[in-house]
Amino acid sequence: MKVLLIGGQGTIGKHIANKLDNHDEVLTVGRSSGDFQADMQDVNSLKDLFEKTGKVDAVVVTAGSAPVKPLRELSPEDFHAGIADKMMGQINVALAAFDQINPGGSITLTTGILAEDPIPNGTILSTVNNAVNGFVIGSYGELIQCNIRINAVSPALVEDSYEALGKYFPGHTPAKMGHVADAYV
Amino acid sequence: MKVLLIGGQGTIGKHIANKLDNHDEVLTVGRSSGDFQADMQDVNSLKDLFEKTGKVDAVVVTAGSAPVKPLRELSPEDFHAGIADKMMGQINVALAAFDQINPGGSITLTTGILAEDPIPNGTILSTVNNAVNGFVIGSYGELIQCNIRINAVSPALVEDSYEALGKYFPGHTPAKMGHVADAYV
Repeated sequence: MKVLLIGGQGTIGKHIANKLDNHDEVLTVGRSSGDFQADMQDVNSLKDLFEKTGKVDAVVVTAGSAPVKPLRELSPEDFHAGIADKMMGQINVALAAFDQINPGGSITLTTGILAEDPIPNGTILSTVNNAVNGFVIGSYGELIQCNIRINAVSPALVEDSYEALGKYFPGHTPAKMGHVADAYV
Repeated sequence: MKVLLIGGQGTIGKHIANKLDNHDEVLTVGRSSGDFQADMQDVNSLKDLFEKTGKVDAVVVTAGSAPVKPLRELSPEDFHAGIADKMMGQINVALAAFDQINPGGSITLTTGILAEDPIPNGTILSTVNNAVNGFVIGSYGELIQCNIRINAVSPALVEDSYEALGKYFPGHTPAKMGHVADAYV
């Protein structure tokens, strides 16, 4: 299977790459690292990417961020930063992938635990994670008619981020990296 | 109770206004109709609105739309039209309302059945409805600390829209207008 892994050098992405590469051809994509470079905020950059890679069997996105700050301080610009990257960045990839996936292939996006289990200062992540979940719910019927599956993986706080981020996730049990990677597989 | 009802002349809003106005002071807001005019896509317009109305006990939004078209034809611009109106329009209202709601007051936004029960051509609505649900999930903890509640009502296809829209919602049972208005009350 030929897998395009956007965010393949990131915290979660590198574990997926490790899990996949015994059996599969994994092409990693990053903004400035990986086998290919692309900016998922830029539709033309994604078109160029697929021209270089040719058709693939699966597209996985583990990239995308959004501002974390107190609700009272949030501006529309803060929301638009999260919308442009974690939300529309992933949606741009799915739309660009539509004609670039072989029959029976799949698209896998990344949301996150804050979609249903919020933390203080996490409103934008709760918003954009749910938006991506909503995109998957809304689009899967039309995609499956084209013989393409779409899913989102919603990771909990992951072990490799626990030291840096654990204090912001009181009461959350970190997820083992191997388990999270399995969800993408 | 002093209730600001944005979309108060719309399909659902007018039923809420009818249900509320025996007991409450209802101020309706529309883009070009109602007691006050405001554009919820424009943060400054919302600031002007609250300067005119003064503090309120509840803000209800039943306004907001998004493009409906086949997945394959969707452009980022189509998404941004839905993001600007039904998603960020409502989020703009909630952020603007933060300091304009009396203690114990509430914010009520509108999402919709497509958040969890999709139809063909409805991907953008599934996306932005879930985004607004996510905003409510993400923000309620910080709002309740300020003694403000936040909720979203997720209406099914409503009776008053059944003749115009029923064909797009195969198998959906329309919701009675009084029941939907009760959810907002």
